[in-house]
Amino acid sequence: MKTKDRILDVSVELFNKNGVVAITTNHIAKAMNISPGNLYFHYDNKEEIIGELFRRMCKETYKIWSPKHISSMSPIQFIEENFDVYWKYRFFHREMYALRRKDPVLAKMWKNHMEKMMKLMKVLYRNWVADGKMVQIKNDKELLYVFESLLAMATTFLQFFESTEKLAGKLSVHRGRTHLVRLLLPYSSGKSKDDFEKFLDSEVSI
Amino acid sequence: MKTKDRILDVSVELFNKNGVVAITTNHIAKAMNISPGNLYFHYDNKEEIIGELFRRMCKETYKIWSPKHISSMSPIQFIEENFDVYWKYRFFHREMYALRRKDPVLAKMWKNHMEKMMKLMKVLYRNWVADGKMVQIKNDKELLYVFESLLAMATTFLQFFESTEKLAGKLSVHRGRTHLVRLLLPYSSGKSKDDFEKFLDSEVSI
Repeated sequence: MKTKDRILDVSVELFNKNGVVAITTNHIAKAMNISPGNLYFHYDNKEEIIGELFRRMCKETYKIWSPKHISSMSPIQFIEENFDVYWKYRFFHREMYALRRKDPVLAKMWKNHMEKMMKLMKVLYRNWVADGKMVQIKNDKELLYVFESLLAMATTFLQFFESTEKLAGKLSVHRGRTHLVRLLLPYSSGKSKDDFEKFLDSEVSI
Repeated sequence: MKTKDRILDVSVELFNKNGVVAITTNHIAKAMNISPGNLYFHYDNKEEIIGELFRRMCKETYKIWSPKHISSMSPIQFIEENFDVYWKYRFFHREMYALRRKDPVLAKMWKNHMEKMMKLMKVLYRNWVADGKMVQIKNDKELLYVFESLLAMATTFLQFFESTEKLAGKLSVHRGRTHLVRLLLPYSSGKSKDDFEKFLDSEVSI
């Protein structure tokens, strides 16, 4: 693997573990056993690394959301794949508010990403309705509500659940996934409905 | 008003406006036209002010949630009153993750507050069911889901909505309120149901 890519992998690991504030480029270089000079050859500063990681996260997400990829899988598989990316870049979802506040470029990227996600969600839902996986939502306000709730829950719940648990982490992500499935349950149809109900039945009470 | 209380009022205003990170005790003293020494006579540091503000927010919230106060008003009024406190201390909801990470004492206070809110919600819901304002939720998992969704949405949505709007603020709070009402709508009953539907009908599309 190229050093430039390895820097990103090590950074995301350290950011997830220790939080972005606590990690400097020196920590990243040290963890990789390279000199700070070598790191600066690839990235000017921490902000550039964060920006690059954000682009990477977006790219991985859009890949899952491509119409071709969507049509090949069930809604529940689709949710799982999204949460894998979510988990991989969890520091963004924990710290986005502070990061956006500090870096206007990232704030703009985030806003664009959210706008794109709202559009992708409309396409996705239309496809799911056409495939009989979901029922049509006729009221536009309700549709917007469902989309916003899904996106808000998916992007902020980790902060909430982690604040109330002894051990933050995978369990919080599982709870977030459960909330998304429950939110979509009233709109699911046919096999999707069965899958959702099975998922919620198998869910461990916490 | 006592200086000690005025420090809290000015602090919350500055924290809401500029974010906690950007505001030092010197800024607070300057905005009040007092000396830093005078401020330190009342509070040792910013963390102590933040802790005191958190206790104040909890106290104001618990007052709204007291069974006697609840029984005197409709669910929609109750939601409005909660959102007034929410708006007043909005910096907490924007920055809680970073603040908790930095201050273990505040993290513990937040966790206790969330646990208390979950208990208060159970009492509230029981009262609403008894008063015919809400229908009973028989499935325990569903009940927990509704409570968690309400609390997660109420404590984290501001971060989400503000990130997607040009002008963050009151509009975001209105949208949060709308989400809460929509979430509760399927469980509402009688006059509450009418109130909820009227509220959602009058809602301006965004």
